Amino acid sequence: MNNNFLQPFLHKGKALFLAYDHGFEHGPKDLTGKSIDPEYILDLAVKGGYTGIILQKGIAEKYYTDTKYQKTIPLILKINGKTNIPQTADPYSSINCSVDYAKRLGAKAVGYTIYLGSKHEEKMFYDFGKIQEQAHKLKMASIAWIYPRGSAVEDEFSPEMTVYAARVGLELGADMIKIKYCGSEETFKKAVQAAGKTKIILSGGPEVEDEEILKTIESVIKAGAIGIAVGRNIFQDQNPLAITEKIKGVVFD
Amino acid sequence: MNNNFLQPFLHKGKALFLAYDHGFEHGPKDLTGKSIDPEYILDLAVKGGYTGIILQKGIAEKYYTDTKYQKTIPLILKINGKTNIPQTADPYSSINCSVDYAKRLGAKAVGYTIYLGSKHEEKMFYDFGKIQEQAHKLKMASIAWIYPRGSAVEDEFSPEMTVYAARVGLELGADMIKIKYCGSEETFKKAVQAAGKTKIILSGGPEVEDEEILKTIESVIKAGAIGIAVGRNIFQDQNPLAITEKIKGVVFD
Amino acid sequence: MNNNFLQPFLHKGKALFLAYDHGFEHGPKDLTGKSIDPEYILDLAVKGGYTGIILQKGIAEKYYTDTKYQKTIPLILKINGKTNIPQTADPYSSINCSVDYAKRLGAKAVGYTIYLGSKHEEKMFYDFGKIQEQAHKLKMASIAWIYPRGSAVEDEFSPEMTVYAARVGLELGADMIKIKYCGSEETFKKAVQAAGKTKIILSGGPEVEDEEILKTIESVIKAGAIGIAVGRNIFQDQNPLAITEKIKGVVFD
Amino acid sequence: MNNNFLQPFLHKGKALFLAYDHGFEHGPKDLTGKSIDPEYILDLAVKGGYTGIILQKGIAEKYYTDTKYQKTIPLILKINGKTNIPQTADPYSSINCSVDYAKRLGAKAVGYTIYLGSKHEEKMFYDFGKIQEQAHKLKMASIAWIYPRGSAVEDEFSPEMTVYAARVGLELGADMIKIKYCGSEETFKKAVQAAGKTKIILSGGPEVEDEEILKTIESVIKAGAIGIAVGRNIFQDQNPLAITEKIKGVVFD
Amino acid sequence: MNNNFLQPFLHKGKALFLAYDHGFEHGPKDLTGKSIDPEYILDLAVKGGYTGIILQKGIAEKYYTDTKYQKTIPLILKINGKTNIPQTADPYSSINCSVDYAKRLGAKAVGYTIYLGSKHEEKMFYDFGKIQEQAHKLKMASIAWIYPRGSAVEDEFSPEMTVYAARVGLELGADMIKIKYCGSEETFKKAVQAAGKTKIILSGGPEVEDEEILKTIESVIKAGAIGIAVGRNIFQDQNPLAITEKIKGVVFD
Repeated sequence: MNNNFLQPFLHKGKALFLAYDHGFEHGPKDLTGKSIDPEYILDLAVKGGYTGIILQKGIAEKYYTDTKYQKTIPLILKINGKTNIPQTADPYSSINCSVDYAKRLGAKAVGYTIYLGSKHEEKMFYDFGKIQEQAHKLKMASIAWIYPRGSAVEDEFSPEMTVYAARVGLELGADMIKIKYCGSEETFKKAVQAAGKTKIILSGGPEVEDEEILKTIESVIKAGAIGIAVGRNIFQDQNPLAITEKIKGVVFD
Repeated sequence: MNNNFLQPFLHKGKALFLAYDHGFEHGPKDLTGKSIDPEYILDLAVKGGYTGIILQKGIAEKYYTDTKYQKTIPLILKINGKTNIPQTADPYSSINCSVDYAKRLGAKAVGYTIYLGSKHEEKMFYDFGKIQEQAHKLKMASIAWIYPRGSAVEDEFSPEMTVYAARVGLELGADMIKIKYCGSEETFKKAVQAAGKTKIILSGGPEVEDEEILKTIESVIKAGAIGIAVGRNIFQDQNPLAITEKIKGVVFD
Repeated sequence: MNNNFLQPFLHKGKALFLAYDHGFEHGPKDLTGKSIDPEYILDLAVKGGYTGIILQKGIAEKYYTDTKYQKTIPLILKINGKTNIPQTADPYSSINCSVDYAKRLGAKAVGYTIYLGSKHEEKMFYDFGKIQEQAHKLKMASIAWIYPRGSAVEDEFSPEMTVYAARVGLELGADMIKIKYCGSEETFKKAVQAAGKTKIILSGGPEVEDEEILKTIESVIKAGAIGIAVGRNIFQDQNPLAITEKIKGVVFD
Repeated sequence: MNNNFLQPFLHKGKALFLAYDHGFEHGPKDLTGKSIDPEYILDLAVKGGYTGIILQKGIAEKYYTDTKYQKTIPLILKINGKTNIPQTADPYSSINCSVDYAKRLGAKAVGYTIYLGSKHEEKMFYDFGKIQEQAHKLKMASIAWIYPRGSAVEDEFSPEMTVYAARVGLELGADMIKIKYCGSEETFKKAVQAAGKTKIILSGGPEVEDEEILKTIESVIKAGAIGIAVGRNIFQDQNPLAITEKIKGVVFD
Repeated sequence: MNNNFLQPFLHKGKALFLAYDHGFEHGPKDLTGKSIDPEYILDLAVKGGYTGIILQKGIAEKYYTDTKYQKTIPLILKINGKTNIPQTADPYSSINCSVDYAKRLGAKAVGYTIYLGSKHEEKMFYDFGKIQEQAHKLKMASIAWIYPRGSAVEDEFSPEMTVYAARVGLELGADMIKIKYCGSEETFKKAVQAAGKTKIILSGGPEVEDEEILKTIESVIKAGAIGIAVGRNIFQDQNPLAITEKIKGVVFD
């Protein structure tokens, strides 16, 4: 079973993903300027040399499937999602795309968010269990976004929670996990260690100064992460390709 | 996958739908005069040159399927619904017709209401995910009614909520969405932009003065919407065909 | 799809059903005298010239299926039910017999109760949606008992609620609905109108004076209902066949 | 459909079952002395001339299936169960064995407990509905334990509740029901009458004086019950075979 | 049906399992030193002569399946799990791996945790019911971790609860159960007796002094348990192989 389903997404063993599900998770207010247009983003992903693009079903189906993009950049289909409107201390994010449909749309991986520590974590472990198995049967990678969140989670960004998230990713059989930064290379290294053969990429987060994000990326790469999924730091930037190049310098070299 | 499932519903690239599910959603009190009779409405839809008729399962099965209407006006089968009787701040509307059955009844599209921001939005995203996939497999369009509603939604008609609704329609893979007016051409244009390749039609709403509805339609068409679904403004009007003609002047010309 | 699944149940276009699910819904205390015995009731139904008998699964399977009764009176299998023991303001009644099994037992129609306006109405709309489709696939009629009930329902017998119930029956695709009297021929006529091609029968209710029930039946028949389902007014009567004859006089003549 | 699935369990038209699910329902404290050992119980059932043995899945699979017992005493597989640990006013008992698996284990009937009047009765009616149909398809009897219990049940042993339980057993299509004593032959006779062609056996209950249990059995047999399921009154007795003989004297003669 | 699915896991009729799901259940903080690395643990299991290794899906798939380990030590795939983050008095642990997938991964048994007495015990009985049947169909053993826990459980380690847990394991059809120590050989013997043909292994628990764990193991083996599942007492020990040898001395000799 040691098939490397991540292979299509790697360049020099590293991954640089452009995430573009903010319109669902945060609302279009995040999609400033041209970034409201999926084609702009897909062009950006290709031009920037990203090794994967993260889309929800609708954008994949209407802008990616059977287009030139399908041949030039591999797709991670994010198959669950929620809005930020309901006020729920213990979140759950439901599936809106089947793994089979993701395959039909040309995806080579599926992504699923788990809110670790939520009162509803049991539903997400169950969902991901089925997703992971179906993905592997279809020879696709399963990627888990694992974010500690819930009424019992005091600090979502604590090293303890981050390392726990990394380990749960491994135990559940994710091929790759997307987790948040926990403050230092040293603590992040423990997450990498806990994740074992499950690969880690950094979740980019809200836009910050170029220097800050580059420093963070450098830190996680040194710690053993294999890449990053960026979004707002790119398409909210005045010069997305320039910041992309800087990031590539850190990730791939 | 770029099949245009909406084609049967378009005239000059525009859509003019007659909606007739008020008997379920609001009760028969909305169905004044002859409008209580589905045949009257179907005749009106044909005579008026509507490009689609929106019905619940029962009315479709008894008045549309295998009748002359099936040949003259395409059907959008509304497959979920609820009454206005239970007092629930966070609504959910359950499925009462399968996509397969809608196909058997002659529908070329299915419609499903999502209450965006409801505590139960997760169930509706899940439902719509399955509906959308099944509809596309059967070569039918999937149309989402997306209405912000719930204890966390302060203003259902705010531009922010409307633009969010439009985007979620795209992300979920709806071919078309039916949303409400948010006050101006300028703000509605942002919704059109956010929806991208997902087409937008205006949800007509309660009866208002002819001038007001025509002005609103003009505004959304200018903003890039491709049409409108009307109901009460037509069949509660003293002269439904006359107001229909006026609307067609705005929509198609 | 214009198959008339109700045909087996009609005499001169009218329906007279003997309902016998009180042992489940209200407890055996309703089944006074000989009426505790299903064979007595089945004999009564045949002798009385009823056009249909309403039974729950168990009584059908043990007293009707493969007996002489199966050849002499058509069966409506009531496939959901609840007791009156739990105190719930917003009722739900669960399915205890599949449509396929009802078919095996010889039923030509299935019956299902919807408590309109209950907080759980969504579950009943969903259940009935599946039942209706399966029934039609098996060439059986789907009959909905639609009773307004729930914490948000102020008056279960108001004309407004009754007309709403009738309309929902049509919208959901019921072939026939069983509803309660709302006080006058005039108001009941509105329910008939709202139900369109969905046929209406009166729900008989608790035992009252002969004159009263006959007057009510006359009123609903004039209003356009096609019949009545009686139970307690028959088998709690001293002379069930005599009152049956009187009812037939009103219904069929 | 008049197959008599109960035939394997009857001797002179009567039934005498040894129930042995107390280890699940009450905990092993009920299983005094040698009765902790399933083989002791199975031997006792055979020696005592019981007409059926009631076991949960695990004990059936490990002590009954493919053993000498399978040829000498027919099995009722109890397919749901709960412990007495959680404090719930409105109980529900979940299924832990499929009907198909019960068949594989050699059972000729399945047993299922319904807590009548519990807020969760709807789930049990639904479960039993599916169980009953599957059992009959596999030519097995369906037996319902029907016990009034819940926050709305004032007196679990009242004649009114007992008669209601009996009737619900018939309406749901149980071939046999196991109910509790309601105080007198006269009142129990009403339960027998309400159950019609559904056979009734008495639920033995906690250990009491020999005279008392014998008197109760005599009372229910006179009332028309066809037997009894005993457990604690047998295996907590100093001389199980002696009390068995006395019971047989009452049941079979 | 008397297939001995436990055979692959026994040495001289005894079992010594190395459990390694702490990263999921407690977080990586339990995995001190080299024990964070699954290969280290797998090597340890082989070198130590363990008769089985307990892993969650992800670690099995990435470190065990199709490796040398698959040939040298049999796998128990733990198919449910939860974190210790949400504060829930009445726990439930959801399934994250199907029995079929466990088979594909090379497992010869599946493990499932039941929190006996939890308000959600009904869900776990239901889950385990399906798991057990599917495991046996695939010729795999079903092993239940049975831990009394919930708002109604006063003392999780009381002899009464422990004996109850053991019995429920038998009644549910587990081939083996993993339970906790209840204080003495005498009381544990009652658990062994209650479990009958269902085999018992001790759940090792948190790290204690070598002498203490050895004494406890000796006690349960004398009581009739067939082994122990150890974890923290091994990999948190300074010399895991040395303590392993001592344990083997107690278990196998």
